[in-house]
Amino acid sequence: MAKGFFDNLRIVLVQTSHPGNIGAVARAMKNMGLSQLVLVAPRRFPDEEAVWRAAHASDLLERARIVSTLDEAVGDCGLVVATSARDRTIPWPALDARAACRKLAAESRQHPVAVVFGREDRGLTNAELRRCNLHLSIPTDEAYSSLNLAMAVQIVCYELRMALVEETLPDDAMADWDQAPASNSDIERLLDHFAEVLAQIGFLNPEAPRQLMTRLRRMFVRTRPDYMEVNILRGMLTAVQQRVGAVAVKKEHGGAPDQSGE
Amino acid sequence: MAKGFFDNLRIVLVQTSHPGNIGAVARAMKNMGLSQLVLVAPRRFPDEEAVWRAAHASDLLERARIVSTLDEAVGDCGLVVATSARDRTIPWPALDARAACRKLAAESRQHPVAVVFGREDRGLTNAELRRCNLHLSIPTDEAYSSLNLAMAVQIVCYELRMALVEETLPDDAMADWDQAPASNSDIERLLDHFAEVLAQIGFLNPEAPRQLMTRLRRMFVRTRPDYMEVNILRGMLTAVQQRVGAVAVKKEHGGAPDQSGE
Repeated sequence: MAKGFFDNLRIVLVQTSHPGNIGAVARAMKNMGLSQLVLVAPRRFPDEEAVWRAAHASDLLERARIVSTLDEAVGDCGLVVATSARDRTIPWPALDARAACRKLAAESRQHPVAVVFGREDRGLTNAELRRCNLHLSIPTDEAYSSLNLAMAVQIVCYELRMALVEETLPDDAMADWDQAPASNSDIERLLDHFAEVLAQIGFLNPEAPRQLMTRLRRMFVRTRPDYMEVNILRGMLTAVQQRVGAVAVKKEHGGAPDQSGE
Repeated sequence: MAKGFFDNLRIVLVQTSHPGNIGAVARAMKNMGLSQLVLVAPRRFPDEEAVWRAAHASDLLERARIVSTLDEAVGDCGLVVATSARDRTIPWPALDARAACRKLAAESRQHPVAVVFGREDRGLTNAELRRCNLHLSIPTDEAYSSLNLAMAVQIVCYELRMALVEETLPDDAMADWDQAPASNSDIERLLDHFAEVLAQIGFLNPEAPRQLMTRLRRMFVRTRPDYMEVNILRGMLTAVQQRVGAVAVKKEHGGAPDQSGE
């Protein structure tokens, strides 16, 4: 991930009332790798509460650019997106947060882009909304749609990061596994071993074996155990066989995970 | 969206220290349509700060289930997902928040599922992590990866909602437009009208017209103006023609948006 892409992603807060929200926004940004914060006419800033809420992101507050107009904040941007509940007077090009952030992330490879967040109580004015190329809305429940400002910024920064890194994330839950998977024939030998032991202990009736072994087979085929797990199970089965006298006790070890059981 | 799916989505907080975080979690959940909150041994709850931070979601606090063990919180769930930075001692099945939430949302159509969040300072214990079927991690920047608890819950609840509603969201920025699009031949007539007027005012040299008209064409074809916008532009062109004496002034109106200009 080239650092440059994130440097082109700007978060703009317009007339924020509560410095605590500015601090929480700085933290939300830094958690997601963003650093460019612009404050348009903040009511109370700098402020200790902002620093406290920023936690380890106070460097973003120190480097925040403070301006008096939206024009100064976004004038150099190639794409400016307003966060907004939908404007009912005249529809504007609008996308949900995910789709808008994909567009922002893509364009950030070429020029500065900005996401503009309005006042805690009143959002953005119609004039501010109409300065923006695109409106972004976060899908919320109709019963309670009012997101806290910092929460909204967190979701947008998360979506911006996801848009930039999603293709690098594994879609396999076992992508970082520490053991090689058992081979197909390892699992066959395991099931053979199970069938042998279950018959020896009288749990499996060799006259009517099918359902039990099919269920065990389905479980292990689905689980795709790793090599170590198969070794552990084979060791357990061998230990059972030794206890019930079905095989001779080996002198070295009982059921250690690294024995093959054969 | 059947209400039932959301009722099967449970958020579990383990030994939360700060009641303000519990309140912020309730708000984050309600914003995204979730309502099932379970608190495992909270340090301070109920508490006024929780109510204050919950804003209009204090009903979730009132209905929150308070239990003393993780077992009571998730024992009836078919899928239990732990939020976690990656466990380095022994890898566990793990997905990023988006992929995990898609799985949770899909399974919530069939049985209760839970997402478990640990303590503000120490997260979940290894024993708690290993009680869970899957680990979920939110992609953050390595330079500052520690998300505030309520922010993490907000992202997860947002992803759960997106997993349930994404297919219903328009992927077209002009999905809710208030005007019908201009037809292809409306745009051709508009471009003809432009060429005529630009020649009449001496801006277009009919001997070498190509680049100018091609650029205007590309702009309007890309913009896909709506019917009203084309009418406005045609009216403006006609008004110019009237001023320069290229056409007779009609007696009724000058450049009203609803006239066709012909």
